[in-house]
Amino acid sequence: MNGADLLCETLLANGIDTCFANPGTSEMHFVAALDRQPRMRCVLGMSEGVVTGAADGYARMAGKPAATLLHLGPGLTNGLANLHNARRAGSPVVNIVGDHATYHLPLDAPLTSDVAALARPMSHWLGRAENADSVGLRTTEAIAASRQFSGQISTLILHADAAWSDTTVEAGNLAPQWLPTSPDIDRIRAAANILKTNQNVTILVSGQALLEPHLTLLSRIATRTGARLMAQQSNARLQRGQGRPDIERVPYPVDQALAAFENTEHVILIGASEPVAFFAYPGKPGRILPNTCQVLKLGEPEHDIAAVIDALAQETGAAIARAPQSDMPPTPDLPTGPLNPDSIAIAVARCLPENAVVCDESVSSGRNFFTHTHGAAPHDFLQLTGGAIGIGMPMAVGAAIACPDRKVLSLQADGSGMYTVQALWTQARERLDVVTVIFANQRYQILHGELRNVGAATPGENARRMLDLDDPALDWVSIARGMGVEAARAETTAQFHDLLSSAFRTPGPFLIEAVI
Amino acid sequence: MNGADLLCETLLANGIDTCFANPGTSEMHFVAALDRQPRMRCVLGMSEGVVTGAADGYARMAGKPAATLLHLGPGLTNGLANLHNARRAGSPVVNIVGDHATYHLPLDAPLTSDVAALARPMSHWLGRAENADSVGLRTTEAIAASRQFSGQISTLILHADAAWSDTTVEAGNLAPQWLPTSPDIDRIRAAANILKTNQNVTILVSGQALLEPHLTLLSRIATRTGARLMAQQSNARLQRGQGRPDIERVPYPVDQALAAFENTEHVILIGASEPVAFFAYPGKPGRILPNTCQVLKLGEPEHDIAAVIDALAQETGAAIARAPQSDMPPTPDLPTGPLNPDSIAIAVARCLPENAVVCDESVSSGRNFFTHTHGAAPHDFLQLTGGAIGIGMPMAVGAAIACPDRKVLSLQADGSGMYTVQALWTQARERLDVVTVIFANQRYQILHGELRNVGAATPGENARRMLDLDDPALDWVSIARGMGVEAARAETTAQFHDLLSSAFRTPGPFLIEAVI
Repeated sequence: MNGADLLCETLLANGIDTCFANPGTSEMHFVAALDRQPRMRCVLGMSEGVVTGAADGYARMAGKPAATLLHLGPGLTNGLANLHNARRAGSPVVNIVGDHATYHLPLDAPLTSDVAALARPMSHWLGRAENADSVGLRTTEAIAASRQFSGQISTLILHADAAWSDTTVEAGNLAPQWLPTSPDIDRIRAAANILKTNQNVTILVSGQALLEPHLTLLSRIATRTGARLMAQQSNARLQRGQGRPDIERVPYPVDQALAAFENTEHVILIGASEPVAFFAYPGKPGRILPNTCQVLKLGEPEHDIAAVIDALAQETGAAIARAPQSDMPPTPDLPTGPLNPDSIAIAVARCLPENAVVCDESVSSGRNFFTHTHGAAPHDFLQLTGGAIGIGMPMAVGAAIACPDRKVLSLQADGSGMYTVQALWTQARERLDVVTVIFANQRYQILHGELRNVGAATPGENARRMLDLDDPALDWVSIARGMGVEAARAETTAQFHDLLSSAFRTPGPFLIEAVI
Repeated sequence: MNGADLLCETLLANGIDTCFANPGTSEMHFVAALDRQPRMRCVLGMSEGVVTGAADGYARMAGKPAATLLHLGPGLTNGLANLHNARRAGSPVVNIVGDHATYHLPLDAPLTSDVAALARPMSHWLGRAENADSVGLRTTEAIAASRQFSGQISTLILHADAAWSDTTVEAGNLAPQWLPTSPDIDRIRAAANILKTNQNVTILVSGQALLEPHLTLLSRIATRTGARLMAQQSNARLQRGQGRPDIERVPYPVDQALAAFENTEHVILIGASEPVAFFAYPGKPGRILPNTCQVLKLGEPEHDIAAVIDALAQETGAAIARAPQSDMPPTPDLPTGPLNPDSIAIAVARCLPENAVVCDESVSSGRNFFTHTHGAAPHDFLQLTGGAIGIGMPMAVGAAIACPDRKVLSLQADGSGMYTVQALWTQARERLDVVTVIFANQRYQILHGELRNVGAATPGENARRMLDLDDPALDWVSIARGMGVEAARAETTAQFHDLLSSAFRTPGPFLIEAVI
């Protein structure tokens, strides 16, 4: 057994059996080790943004980390943007980044770079396996760190000589499972007191709180106390649809967010952070809550969020209350005429399969999606958590691999979709049940709005050359087919609805270019 | 005038009039400033690997930096791999990376990351414009640093409030031009003495030494003294073809490189580094030169390489010698039958237009390219310098923008081409004269060889799933057309030759999928 085998066996012993990969020469001994171990599922991404984005999507749905396999500093850097998103999602990921043999580093060969320095800003845990004997322990540490709290990013630098050298160290070290601490009951009583005695209270939640049964319990608490229940703007995973609470998110546009909290006197945070503007704007506040608003944080990352919510339900009397009447709007009729983001959302509401996973990177086109889809079949909703575009289609890859029995719907803006368009090929290669909807507005629509905000009434030549994607127009059907994904274009709502229903009934990946 | 205008004007005052960009909200004031200044050419890349790779290609051919415009930490990280290549090429690049308003950073909004920490490993100069008044000075510093030596990577972090705030600072600060120092004449005499009195001497060159008239002068020195003239394995830019010296490069495979220097007793380095193995292998040396070989370095980065070569020519008597007879092989006949890398190279040799720029990321398929193309029309040859794949097509973008009157030939392996496939769209948008040849072998061919080297005789399921790209096969014609680039597939040498000649005669981008 060499260090690479020890790494592989240690991952498997700890339940990590999926490896999203794009290897190179320095990782070839690890590739050979993976090749000797068919229990590990290896999934190739044709750029590292696909690799790390898939690991994030996988972790959100599987509730455990996948490994990634990245080639030296440049391979790592290509994946950092989606590690940023994974970090913001609280997803567990175990990155294995190859590096030169330790003794080769001083020669400064062309691919040499400071891998640790590049990894550190996006990693909660960073370690280095410098010899074969240390690989097992380092891997166990990396896995343990990745399981801390809701999940963390671990990056293990695997030197080539550590991978290829023999070792007699036994595989199978088990990383400890992370155990959350009990909630602070005084703080929960204080929150219950606020809820029972105040108007204009918002319970702002994210993380585990957005999964059932916690979300329904929170909804009972809100109903019983007259508080408003709201989700953070971006969330790793949110369960919604028929029979589940109709939860709104903090709006993205800063003015709408400010308006949403204008009269709020108390905010109780559960798994969420205090809302702030995504970006700063001249003359506008960065904090969304009014200065007079009082904030109580229930539960730090180390706390057991389920226990926090249970205790709060006890203290507010909501645990024994009846479930709130689900005020479910009927699914709206399908509009006629040209496609737009609203008619797309309505079509989705009408034909989304039960228990689907919706991966959302529709950016500006998705603003009204919740409004129309509350009555859709129950589904999980996964968002872009860190604002680094290019996670949508990779996240769909990871979600589909984590949940082979569920349909994945990938709602994808065209501009951000191009960032990691290579993910379509992995969807084809792995025969994943992913239906991708491209919102083809042929522009960075969100930036047109921002440009207006900075006072440029009509974009000139240079602005249009940086914000418009219409010259030439992207032909998404050709691009998808070129990567082995069957595809079609929809220009009317009826066409779109037909394509979508048919895609949901058919196994394997499909892409719809929705011309809006 | 605001800070963003000051930045734009300072770039222009220093001759930087091309900006490769992918902006976001935090850079919107800079976008508005660029929009007010039509003298700046703004070129959009649909992922930042395109942006920084194009800046590298531009710098290599224009001999001056372009600016890049990148969106916060994640936008920067997407571009770091090609900055790694640019750093290894010695290319000047001035990166402008947006960041949040200074006062917004402590709120830790979702897109917040440590931009400086991410930039540092790939930047020679790193600075921060924290207010509008400092933008001019910081930009000048960034430009000055980028011009040091053959070229360096400068990264300027532009905080949003520095961009949008008014300033009365005047634009137009001129960055000093970098001036090289004179050569060390004693060292040159020592080199001349080695050349005149020893057998088995290799002059190993890179950088400016590979451009005319220096290369021809070096060739005269070699001929007169009986030394061997050789280029580094990877070079930013090398001038070759009919009438120019037939210079070979240090081979990539470590065994071939070792064999090439087996009998070498002296190496004189001019603009090159001592050759080392690209990767370490068990039981093989990292240094390529024999232990007994003596190395003399002529010229540090601060030296005037042209003056070094001139002085060496004087000292060896080569300055007044006649130019060596160009021992030019006749262009070989076009082979018949199926395509392969050799027949592709021969077809290129036969129809490459005069003064073309060849951007090479053909990886394993390009190993014999030089053998067949020495008799091709004179051209510039640009390589992958840092081993971070995904620069080929972006580099072609930059070269074509720097040299609008020259044809660009982009020799592209399929696996690495997928990394930054979005560059095709920029080629279409900018109507660039780029002919792309995809070496479609449907695998990471180089890694199959490396896997064999580590003792895995027949790749198993997991190895094939990470190294093969044939399931599904990429349809490059569809992918290219989807991004607005006309394309065709060639399966025989005759087909390929016809497509290539026709593409060279037609303006605008064209892609040939060469099935090998």
